[in-house]
Amino acid sequence: MQVEGLSINLATIREQCGFAEAVDICLKHGITHIAPWRDQVAKVGLEEAVRIVRANGLKLTGLCRGGFFPAIDRVGWEKNLDDNRRAIDEAAALGADCLVLVVGGLPGSSKDIAAARQMVSNGIAAVLPHAQAAGVPLAIEPLHPMYAADRACVNTLGQALDICEQLGEDVGVAIDVYHVWWDPDLAEQIARAGRMKRIFAHHICDWLVPTKDMLTDRGMMGDGVIDLKGIRRMIEEAGFLGAQEVEIFSADNWWKRPADEVIAICVERYHSCCQA
Amino acid sequence: MQVEGLSINLATIREQCGFAEAVDICLKHGITHIAPWRDQVAKVGLEEAVRIVRANGLKLTGLCRGGFFPAIDRVGWEKNLDDNRRAIDEAAALGADCLVLVVGGLPGSSKDIAAARQMVSNGIAAVLPHAQAAGVPLAIEPLHPMYAADRACVNTLGQALDICEQLGEDVGVAIDVYHVWWDPDLAEQIARAGRMKRIFAHHICDWLVPTKDMLTDRGMMGDGVIDLKGIRRMIEEAGFLGAQEVEIFSADNWWKRPADEVIAICVERYHSCCQA
Repeated sequence: MQVEGLSINLATIREQCGFAEAVDICLKHGITHIAPWRDQVAKVGLEEAVRIVRANGLKLTGLCRGGFFPAIDRVGWEKNLDDNRRAIDEAAALGADCLVLVVGGLPGSSKDIAAARQMVSNGIAAVLPHAQAAGVPLAIEPLHPMYAADRACVNTLGQALDICEQLGEDVGVAIDVYHVWWDPDLAEQIARAGRMKRIFAHHICDWLVPTKDMLTDRGMMGDGVIDLKGIRRMIEEAGFLGAQEVEIFSADNWWKRPADEVIAICVERYHSCCQA
Repeated sequence: MQVEGLSINLATIREQCGFAEAVDICLKHGITHIAPWRDQVAKVGLEEAVRIVRANGLKLTGLCRGGFFPAIDRVGWEKNLDDNRRAIDEAAALGADCLVLVVGGLPGSSKDIAAARQMVSNGIAAVLPHAQAAGVPLAIEPLHPMYAADRACVNTLGQALDICEQLGEDVGVAIDVYHVWWDPDLAEQIARAGRMKRIFAHHICDWLVPTKDMLTDRGMMGDGVIDLKGIRRMIEEAGFLGAQEVEIFSADNWWKRPADEVIAICVERYHSCCQA
């Protein structure tokens, strides 16, 4: 039986299996929407990944990830742009709904976050024509402020939407509840994203208390404090009815369990905790 | 020689020494401004702490901390308010510039952060008359969003100032660079706080990359990515010329070094990294 509205970001079972096996497990559980990471695609080979996607009628809710624009010099900058263009080509080949952008943090030993943010806008603008030619929407993923220094200096939905407004309609947002659940402006900014028609993806997991690791201690939906139903309601009211994509980095728990078990629990929790 | 404009939050050397010894070390380094925590005061006894403060002509840039308002029931709520009234009395006895409020997170198993935020406003409003009668300004400290669930659901300066606006002029903010440095609205909100005359304290330390622990891996000024001079400039331009208060929680580094060495380095870094 097909599970409507659920997508699995393959990072959720990245330690347990490669692309092909991950796809098999998703299909076994009735899931036809996935979102792979580029390294997972590279490992099986882009052509083979495309073949698997087509042969199984899979839909990609996104490809993770482009971004990391800020650089310390011109050479690094051009290298980053080239890498983003390759990511766009891969997303196009795979027919992904969008390329997710984790925009990057402070380059080198910089303490100038405003400058890094400007580089991000400039970087997205620079690769946007390539994305438009390839038909790949770019989805800025605002990351939790705890990643501002080293992963992404775009840290709120409002800030991401300001960039979208500036760059035009093929640049939108991936709203990951883990990163934005705390934001006092969340309801307002989700509504704004809806009016702008820029919600390109909706990622889910949960915020655990306590959170033992800043990177790899994300929780399964229902195990933490995020009001997943409430946020989904806001997102649907804003006009986005696309799949909810489970993305869980969990070194000490979910990455250690059998992938089949993890996906079964994702399905169960999706039904019990996530629908508006 | 006295060090002008520098205060030491005694949490910075909490593992090494008690109140009296901490004061001696600060004085030795020419520091006459301190900010103790309530447990440090309690250990030596409030009366003795007041005596030490007066005998040495110390100035308290704040007492840490009141707050933790949200509760699961009426009994817990009243208990929290009582505790805040006691904290206000202690701050008054010590002649502290303000009582710092770490407002609290989600009570019990709640996922309703909007409700928790409302409890915070209500709680501050409830104890404000007591604070006014005691002559103790209340300083809301917006905490980094990574603490939204378990420590403070007020997570941006803008959000804190909205509460201040609502409650009146004896409620202001403690701006800790660790919590706010990433905020895209920082410059604008510091200017707003200045116009409102609500900057009651300025705390400093640094954000390390990587940050290994969410609670106890704060860095010494200069060792991380925060533009301390730039933020100090904004704060002075907003009209706050009070001391910068060093508050470093560092289980694996600074709490393991001799307190005398830690304070010497605080003074050195204050001169080299922190002044506008």
